[in-house]
Amino acid sequence: MAETAFPAGADPITNRERDNERIRRGEVDTPSSLLMRFSEPLTLDSGAVLSDWQIGYQTYGRLNEAKSNAVLLCHALTGDQHAANRHPLTGRAGWWETLVGPGRPIDTDRYFVICSNVLGGCSGTTGPASLDPSTGEPYGLDFPVVTIADMVRAQARLVEALGIETLFAVVGGSMGGMQVLQWGVSYGDRVFAALPIAAGTRHSPQNIGFHEVGRQAIMADPDWRGGRYEAAGLRPKKGLSVARMAAHITYVSEAALARKFGRALQDRDMVTYGFDADFQVESYLRHQGSTFVDRFDANSYLYLTRAMDYFDLALQHDGMAANAFLGTMTRWCVISFTSDWLFPTAESRTVVHALNAAAAEVSFVEIETDKGHDAFLLDEPSFDSAVRGFLKGAARARGLPVGAP
Amino acid sequence: MAETAFPAGADPITNRERDNERIRRGEVDTPSSLLMRFSEPLTLDSGAVLSDWQIGYQTYGRLNEAKSNAVLLCHALTGDQHAANRHPLTGRAGWWETLVGPGRPIDTDRYFVICSNVLGGCSGTTGPASLDPSTGEPYGLDFPVVTIADMVRAQARLVEALGIETLFAVVGGSMGGMQVLQWGVSYGDRVFAALPIAAGTRHSPQNIGFHEVGRQAIMADPDWRGGRYEAAGLRPKKGLSVARMAAHITYVSEAALARKFGRALQDRDMVTYGFDADFQVESYLRHQGSTFVDRFDANSYLYLTRAMDYFDLALQHDGMAANAFLGTMTRWCVISFTSDWLFPTAESRTVVHALNAAAAEVSFVEIETDKGHDAFLLDEPSFDSAVRGFLKGAARARGLPVGAP
Repeated sequence: MAETAFPAGADPITNRERDNERIRRGEVDTPSSLLMRFSEPLTLDSGAVLSDWQIGYQTYGRLNEAKSNAVLLCHALTGDQHAANRHPLTGRAGWWETLVGPGRPIDTDRYFVICSNVLGGCSGTTGPASLDPSTGEPYGLDFPVVTIADMVRAQARLVEALGIETLFAVVGGSMGGMQVLQWGVSYGDRVFAALPIAAGTRHSPQNIGFHEVGRQAIMADPDWRGGRYEAAGLRPKKGLSVARMAAHITYVSEAALARKFGRALQDRDMVTYGFDADFQVESYLRHQGSTFVDRFDANSYLYLTRAMDYFDLALQHDGMAANAFLGTMTRWCVISFTSDWLFPTAESRTVVHALNAAAAEVSFVEIETDKGHDAFLLDEPSFDSAVRGFLKGAARARGLPVGAP
Repeated sequence: MAETAFPAGADPITNRERDNERIRRGEVDTPSSLLMRFSEPLTLDSGAVLSDWQIGYQTYGRLNEAKSNAVLLCHALTGDQHAANRHPLTGRAGWWETLVGPGRPIDTDRYFVICSNVLGGCSGTTGPASLDPSTGEPYGLDFPVVTIADMVRAQARLVEALGIETLFAVVGGSMGGMQVLQWGVSYGDRVFAALPIAAGTRHSPQNIGFHEVGRQAIMADPDWRGGRYEAAGLRPKKGLSVARMAAHITYVSEAALARKFGRALQDRDMVTYGFDADFQVESYLRHQGSTFVDRFDANSYLYLTRAMDYFDLALQHDGMAANAFLGTMTRWCVISFTSDWLFPTAESRTVVHALNAAAAEVSFVEIETDKGHDAFLLDEPSFDSAVRGFLKGAARARGLPVGAP
């Protein structure tokens, strides 16, 4: 990370300080995350105020002298700040290593890349699992409901604390795409280029429905205890697992499920006439559910799904999403995937139409793939090319070195 | 119902006999269902044998002298035998009154219509809530897993018991459509005409996935008690409700949800920044869940979803669905709906292709509608016309009176 003078009210904590105990216990062998603590209050859309809060984040690459090469990555619902480093707890590769790294489309040899855990999350940033300063206990459902705009508000404070006035680019998919859109709306003058991927101007009724199923599954789990599971030494694992299984189906396409699993059986020659995971697709979904509960907080899942449900740019702007972007000077590149049925291309088109109506500079790329909504997290060469090409053009316009054409 | 001499091993029980107590308690004011009890064993695909079993059914119209005007209706996952009469417990109209009744496309003035609750169901027919004769307790998970072919096997016994050699038509949608297909395969010589609606030759991996989510939601409910909830005086209402909510989203189309609800709020002017059902679509889904648990048995839900998962005509016939239909003399009419994403038109086309490959007499109708999978249960004039027209043509070929052209 570049040397930065941190402003008053922003207090960086070294990862080692936070993780000393874990490292001592041998649970993690690498620093997990940077932390920035803020003592200046954050006022939320709901009117609630967080007086003492923090953001967990990671950076990759170096901030240049002009501080003009910073790229902010916005993560999706169950993502975190570990976009391009091995996850300190799960040991898995960063969730965007396909796209972010030296020589990659978001090239850490050229750009200073920041990725922070969202407000309401569970990976270092203040959320429902954090301690409520007024009680000394985890907030649980006393944590205020946050919005996408609140997440962006918090990120803007982090970016300020890092001494960056204007981001070269903001990039993200799904819930991350919503944040990118909100950055362009709330802080348009601080964003040179924006890439909202697999998103829309608002969350659709069907998607609200799927989220509500997940929330009800969590709340139906008696171990959820009205959100106070931590005090009871419990976790609503079964409910959260069901929520994840249902959601996961929406992240992949029917075609991909058919290609990967079809009706193939799991480690058996014929069906068992029972309720075991006879089919590979069942086994796969159960695995998605059971591994998720080890890395994600159930209350955070409630809060972040709610933030997505509430997202509606038109509602923020007299019923017209186009009004959200009036006067935007940001260069936009909107990306969708043909087999994404959670945020289908039609949703991305609503973004493009709103930007067009605001006379914005916008390009639109629909990527042909059978990988569904999660395509933005997977190895998809034409997607990589689109991101690389757009950023290169924007870098040239920004006067950043772009290397060979 | 026509006067019939019932064969040995089939014993009709009057509805009044069964419902006397309920009627005395004033819970129902009409007879609820006919029952046929069978003492001759039923051997299932799994190899298990039901030695003492029964079918709950309803009939409408009159069987003609030649016994050539019988139409069997096959219900979907959560349907029952009350296709065209007020439901004795819920008081709601029959689930297919749009299609079945005097003068309706399935005209009870012309046809003798039979609808029976499926094996494994919870509305009179033997299922997991029935008493296991070997223990005197409800079967629970000791009930053998049944298949679509088992359901049809049981229905065939009912049809025989009613003295009918050949059905004029077999009609059904979704799981009912699977049964129609299986009728054509298992008892093709007893089916003059067949209408599989919104079905396919096998259950898709995505649909298996959604079913598995529902099953896991039920089994995650501590009140499920390994399927022995009845003995404990409990019911896994929360889990079953979540299962129903998730499934219900798949029964409707995104367009219909957008048209009916959009992002409209439920009885409020602005969001509450909380986890109440702020949006109408949430309230609607919660209602779907909470009303379902009052009329459906959770274990039956496990069994019937499993039967659908196992359905695969190709697997039954050396990997070729077409082989299932070789030599079929039945007249087929396959129907799909443009906005059905659970059983999309492509699935119906697999049926049509298999029938074509078997040189069957088949017509195919894709109905333009935004109502999704459930369109077959809703008022959809072009669907009604298609069913009416096909049955009229088949009736003419069968030598049945068809009235004015």
